[in-house]
Amino acid sequence: MAHTLVLLRHGESVWNAENLFTGWVDVPLSEKGRAEAEHGGRLLAESGLLPDVVHTSLLRRAITTASIALDVADRHWIPVRRSWRLNERHYGALQGKNKKQTLEEYGEEQFMLWRRSFDVPPPPIEPGSEFSQDGDPRYADLGAEMPRTECLKDVIARFLPYWESDVTADLRAGHTVLVAAHGNSLRALVKHLDGISDDDIAGLNIPTGMPLVYELDDELRPTVAGGRYLDPDAAAEAAAAVANQGR
Amino acid sequence: MAHTLVLLRHGESVWNAENLFTGWVDVPLSEKGRAEAEHGGRLLAESGLLPDVVHTSLLRRAITTASIALDVADRHWIPVRRSWRLNERHYGALQGKNKKQTLEEYGEEQFMLWRRSFDVPPPPIEPGSEFSQDGDPRYADLGAEMPRTECLKDVIARFLPYWESDVTADLRAGHTVLVAAHGNSLRALVKHLDGISDDDIAGLNIPTGMPLVYELDDELRPTVAGGRYLDPDAAAEAAAAVANQGR
Repeated sequence: MAHTLVLLRHGESVWNAENLFTGWVDVPLSEKGRAEAEHGGRLLAESGLLPDVVHTSLLRRAITTASIALDVADRHWIPVRRSWRLNERHYGALQGKNKKQTLEEYGEEQFMLWRRSFDVPPPPIEPGSEFSQDGDPRYADLGAEMPRTECLKDVIARFLPYWESDVTADLRAGHTVLVAAHGNSLRALVKHLDGISDDDIAGLNIPTGMPLVYELDDELRPTVAGGRYLDPDAAAEAAAAVANQGR
Repeated sequence: MAHTLVLLRHGESVWNAENLFTGWVDVPLSEKGRAEAEHGGRLLAESGLLPDVVHTSLLRRAITTASIALDVADRHWIPVRRSWRLNERHYGALQGKNKKQTLEEYGEEQFMLWRRSFDVPPPPIEPGSEFSQDGDPRYADLGAEMPRTECLKDVIARFLPYWESDVTADLRAGHTVLVAAHGNSLRALVKHLDGISDDDIAGLNIPTGMPLVYELDDELRPTVAGGRYLDPDAAAEAAAAVANQGR
């Protein structure tokens, strides 16, 4: 049995547009981001790739992206599952900071280390500071698992249990699964699926609002490495733009 | 333990605005309907009535109303459950017809019988006709339960099993439950909760976009009959307007 998995990174948020580190700060989509989500939904509909179930993070930019795209594709009625394990990487003390200012303040080397190193997280966020999620009811049950900062390695460690328990269960049940999430939670998934090394994952960028489709075999391994974008030319252009953020 | 149940009828749809019988036809909200959903969300937030879980029908006017209201109330991240059993009454052969024209064509008595009688459904919809849901994948598993027309009695019969199995389970677990649904599926629920007679339910109208809150005791009986609207004056005005539709 073939299994179909569709990944969708949320459209531009108002903080993407302002070039701020976002992480777990729950900002809405920009108008451009809503248009990207609509476009993603049209690509799904035109390709006949119709999700049977959707998994989202607990952040509204992913939730709204999924809602808009599924409505456009006439699949707004499918079952919805959500987990904090699909959230964006927690950006620690960088949350709310301007990317360009951070680059200028700390220099290229430190900046790229925080953005792209596999196992060096930014400094942890201060308890009670403006952009921390202390007291947020959606994370009330996390206890000691509540992050104060994360590197990609940390994202993988908290994402994979949900992949193994929940997403793969839907795939094995024969459902076409949509995962609507974030740059780094989707990079964690792609690294796992394609067996990308800790070094090479730094060079992988996932564009916003462009459905990325993986056909998986019975062991849930990709039949084509890297999957395929429904709109490959636009995806390549957008991935290059993501890589240049902060410049 | 007190149990809190919040009912929310979807905002105005584009067919409400055009005065057409809608039923299971899956039309979107109008701009006014989106504004009503936002207002409903603000009322929830201002009253501190924050749902822990939401149940919706499979129709986008209820799904979008819930999404908008929960986003405004900062509860977009809660678990979502959906069921066809929360759908609007199936309006049979009247689906897609203008209410005023139907009133003129069939006369006041027949019109009110179809709109408000407890156990007389409209004529069934023709298989394959423009506004039937034949072949709609969201109803593929219904089999013989798929309605071709419904009276309120039919709605109660298909709604109550879901109430008993799914909604009450969330209430008994201590969750504040939001049910985002339709004029007739919510009338079915209110009739059950308040023990309204088959005759008296004809006079009950639920306004769009206005959260109606029931506090329930341990037997899930309302502590105050009829619940309370978060905006009672506006609700009374809107209910009167619903009663005059088709005039």
